[in-house]
Amino acid sequence: MSEPDSDLPVRHVSSTRVVAVRGTEIEVRGDTVVGEEPMEIRAAGPGQEPVAVAVTMRTPGHEAELAVGFLRTEGLIGGHADVKDVEFGDPGALNRPDDTVIVRLTKPFDALAVAERHFVATASCGICGKASLDEIAVRAAPIPPGPVVARTVLLGLPDALRAAQAVFEKTGGLHAAGLFAPDGTLVAIREDVGRHNALDKLVGSQLLAGRGPLNNRILMVSGRVSFEIVQKAAVAGIPILCAVSAPSDLAVEAANRLGVTLVGFLRGDGFNLYANDGRIDLRDLMG
Amino acid sequence: MSEPDSDLPVRHVSSTRVVAVRGTEIEVRGDTVVGEEPMEIRAAGPGQEPVAVAVTMRTPGHEAELAVGFLRTEGLIGGHADVKDVEFGDPGALNRPDDTVIVRLTKPFDALAVAERHFVATASCGICGKASLDEIAVRAAPIPPGPVVARTVLLGLPDALRAAQAVFEKTGGLHAAGLFAPDGTLVAIREDVGRHNALDKLVGSQLLAGRGPLNNRILMVSGRVSFEIVQKAAVAGIPILCAVSAPSDLAVEAANRLGVTLVGFLRGDGFNLYANDGRIDLRDLMG
Repeated sequence: MSEPDSDLPVRHVSSTRVVAVRGTEIEVRGDTVVGEEPMEIRAAGPGQEPVAVAVTMRTPGHEAELAVGFLRTEGLIGGHADVKDVEFGDPGALNRPDDTVIVRLTKPFDALAVAERHFVATASCGICGKASLDEIAVRAAPIPPGPVVARTVLLGLPDALRAAQAVFEKTGGLHAAGLFAPDGTLVAIREDVGRHNALDKLVGSQLLAGRGPLNNRILMVSGRVSFEIVQKAAVAGIPILCAVSAPSDLAVEAANRLGVTLVGFLRGDGFNLYANDGRIDLRDLMG
Repeated sequence: MSEPDSDLPVRHVSSTRVVAVRGTEIEVRGDTVVGEEPMEIRAAGPGQEPVAVAVTMRTPGHEAELAVGFLRTEGLIGGHADVKDVEFGDPGALNRPDDTVIVRLTKPFDALAVAERHFVATASCGICGKASLDEIAVRAAPIPPGPVVARTVLLGLPDALRAAQAVFEKTGGLHAAGLFAPDGTLVAIREDVGRHNALDKLVGSQLLAGRGPLNNRILMVSGRVSFEIVQKAAVAGIPILCAVSAPSDLAVEAANRLGVTLVGFLRGDGFNLYANDGRIDLRDLMG
């Protein structure tokens, strides 16, 4: 059994434009970011209509493997003999034919078992990705243009975040999200085993304290930047999102469309600007 | 507005027993791992019954913030004025009172909007965590005792995984999952922006190729180990799970109960054994 064919090239990675700052050097150049795209998994027994089981944000490629592997590791199917065929479905609101994968089974599929399972939501995005970006942009109030933040303020954020990470030091197992004022002062930090949870706790802490909107804040996260992190920051009205590591292509696109300044690879003496870089003041580097 | 009170101590971290190997030194000692626990978020407008919105695997602490922040960043509520109160609910199948959080709103809550949202499932665990571990143990076929793997084989896995990570080199943004034979030979590797997806693709690749069961394989993942990674490995029948980084406390517990050997902090010349360490041969270090 092999992967079904899609006419589209596999988008493991995308090219993007980046303003790379290293020390006192600025370079505007092309960069490569990892592909991210929603995929819906459906399953059907003989003579059954396909049932939607889950939507996952994934890197394109190996779609049949992902669908079958998900069903297997969630205990919804047994082994090889349970799988009759894998095909691409009508992508509907999604973007690529391989965004919807239908797994045809040799045995009846218990749709009720799926309905009874409560799939853990670490994040959500309508159904899903690019198709819902316009809707999100409507739901998120427009982010005002300011603040403009000095380059040197950005460079201090990783150390400030790490210094405030109490639990990480003990376990090495936590994501952190920190909220900073435009001058680099730490406002609040939250840690969690889930990266989305750390951000949600942070936003919730400000909301419960009656502190908002967050239009004058900088968000710094410890890991990578997915589409969903950008979406959450945008809905919360946070104008500048910084991360220690890399963004996905969908994260870059979402940041551009939702008006979020996206800073990646913020570490040491440099960083990459992926979207809306007007909020980062680089004039001290320009001759 | 403040956090509701739980009588339980907050479990940011837990203590566990670990067999720590560094070079030729073995030490059995206590270790600290990050807490992980399911939490259900419910919401209700005035006079409405609470509606389950999402279940997330989180580190205990700041439950009200997490619930309110999730509703906010998902665009399901506006600001501070929308939140009347936050309380803990009947934990039901969950374990702690603070595992179920009810957000009382000042406006009607649109339950239909939640039903229409398709929350992205990066993983799933019934409803949820410890309460479902017994059920999973039933669903997962018992993992046979073997193989027994040499310490030196383990030490070679991180470099082998990284060397095979084609896309990571270009983007810095990918998780990887690799499947190895007991002698350390790489069988297959898959990469994805989502850690669960990388594992699902890997398991799916073997299933589609008719290669199974995976009772004689070692799984190595690039990041941290959550409960859900252990669960997926166990359901797939993989006896040894190794990770570059830290496990959560629920991951350690699940590995112990499901019969999975759990190896963490596998890097350089050492690693930590958290569960079922009989499958790792350390006899060359014992006098």
